[in-house]
Amino acid sequence: MTRTIVASATREIIIGFDQPFCVIGERINPTGRKKLAAEMIEGNFDTVIKDALEQVAAGATMLDVNAGVTAVNPNETEPPLLVKTMEIVQGLVDVPLSIDSSVTAAIEAALKVAKGRPLINSVTGEEEKLEAILPLCKKYDVPVVAISNDETGISQDPDVRFAVAKKIVERAADYGIKPHDIVVDPLVMPIGAVGSAGLQVFALIRRLREELKVNTTCGLSNISFGLPHRHGINAGFIPMVIGAGMTSAIMNPCRPAEMEAVRAANVLNGTDEHCYNWIKTYRDYKPAEGGAAAAAPASASTGGGRRGGRAARVGGGAASE
Amino acid sequence: MTRTIVASATREIIIGFDQPFCVIGERINPTGRKKLAAEMIEGNFDTVIKDALEQVAAGATMLDVNAGVTAVNPNETEPPLLVKTMEIVQGLVDVPLSIDSSVTAAIEAALKVAKGRPLINSVTGEEEKLEAILPLCKKYDVPVVAISNDETGISQDPDVRFAVAKKIVERAADYGIKPHDIVVDPLVMPIGAVGSAGLQVFALIRRLREELKVNTTCGLSNISFGLPHRHGINAGFIPMVIGAGMTSAIMNPCRPAEMEAVRAANVLNGTDEHCYNWIKTYRDYKPAEGGAAAAAPASASTGGGRRGGRAARVGGGAASE
Repeated sequence: MTRTIVASATREIIIGFDQPFCVIGERINPTGRKKLAAEMIEGNFDTVIKDALEQVAAGATMLDVNAGVTAVNPNETEPPLLVKTMEIVQGLVDVPLSIDSSVTAAIEAALKVAKGRPLINSVTGEEEKLEAILPLCKKYDVPVVAISNDETGISQDPDVRFAVAKKIVERAADYGIKPHDIVVDPLVMPIGAVGSAGLQVFALIRRLREELKVNTTCGLSNISFGLPHRHGINAGFIPMVIGAGMTSAIMNPCRPAEMEAVRAANVLNGTDEHCYNWIKTYRDYKPAEGGAAAAAPASASTGGGRRGGRAARVGGGAASE
Repeated sequence: MTRTIVASATREIIIGFDQPFCVIGERINPTGRKKLAAEMIEGNFDTVIKDALEQVAAGATMLDVNAGVTAVNPNETEPPLLVKTMEIVQGLVDVPLSIDSSVTAAIEAALKVAKGRPLINSVTGEEEKLEAILPLCKKYDVPVVAISNDETGISQDPDVRFAVAKKIVERAADYGIKPHDIVVDPLVMPIGAVGSAGLQVFALIRRLREELKVNTTCGLSNISFGLPHRHGINAGFIPMVIGAGMTSAIMNPCRPAEMEAVRAANVLNGTDEHCYNWIKTYRDYKPAEGGAAAAAPASASTGGGRRGGRAARVGGGAASE
């Protein structure tokens, strides 16, 4: 069984097919957030602190930490800023962290101060990246997110994306890094632009799990890019990727619709034992609109299915009343 | 490709792996609805009419029609009542109907007045049922829901439930009924009582699709029986069964959370071409709470993925801002 172990100073998390879905909170990332970038440049970490606390409170399993505030001299400016951000976040919350940078020097600087066993985010199939990042994974004994693109960009052909992932796993093996320490991102295309994006990624996740035996992740909300009511698409996508075998995602845990989908899929996938987390979270749930609260059970706890075929539905159908 | 054709007088619907999920509205069913049962016994069809119109307006692909109001003399009382209900419903809406009864005489009486090509709901693996229902399917050339239980009840072992489904398909073949006219219900257990109920049914759906090449259905809300916030579990279950290959469900289309999950899964499964139905439904969507409306696209329509691995996420991540 594939188990990717990540840890903070005090908490170990396993990413795996038999584990609750690993929600990697994406909020601490100034890319596309001008206000956050400006704050971080000024040394103001108020939003970072707020985002760290809120994401963990909302149920994030891990937090991604990115300090890419500028395209000017990132090799000099990003390492100290990422270190500072990491130190603030790991002083505040006890979830494992994902070190997110395209600057190798920033990743290594962060690895030096990281407590526990962080995840590196990321390596790609590009030669330069492989040669820069894989030695760090080996040296610091940490897992890494492997994104299925290379020098030629992101292929529209899922077979090519699979081949890139396979190449990364093989190259990692040359460094003595095991497949269980590679978390592959098969790359999710926006379904509004690529109608087969869903079917592509479900098939890719299954192949990655069955053939490469790796854990997987993705930038989840990319699927709904450009569509109205994105959270509805995201909330439908989550159970589908979990059903296909995806084990983590980089996403916003502060969105109730998405986190509810994660919790429901954990129940349905058998990783929320005795529905403990679901019941704890929704025991006193009152619907805001539309949906009715759970009806009182109308018959036996197995749904009254004994009275014949239809009866099983009638037991379930009580929710409609 | 497996295609189950159902029709009203004016509209044909295909149930199939490459088709939008077939939502069979479950509301017109007096089982467990004392008020509706009392009305129907009195010859008052106000609620039936309301339920028919509301379910079709909410997006039902078909409507299930059940008139099992009493356990006393159903062989005499149910046929005329089911006929009357069928006539009212098919005079009101143009979706195909599912004839739902455990009384063979009622099913045959309904078949005689049904327009188009209704679905019979249901046969089981019980000898008596097989011998009563399969000849009707042949005689009237209509498809049938096959529920995977037999004289021994509902097995907790999914392999046994598969074997029952296989037996029904084989027995149907003896009557000259093709697998594409059998819609198997693998039986969904409540996940609160059977922790493996989800994994069981996902595996069963795949086997039924790959080995027996049949369409599938289920009484969807049974999965959440006994749990708080049932609609959240149901809404997570729908994308998972659709991802596993289920092609229809008997459910309540008047629940926004469940129908949103169906529409999202159709988009993600590639059966809502160009996201037409999603965009039409949610173009002007305003979230009630929590979720933000879709953010303006921050970059190219393919999600800005060209700037490297992380950029793909940033494009998607715009929804978080």
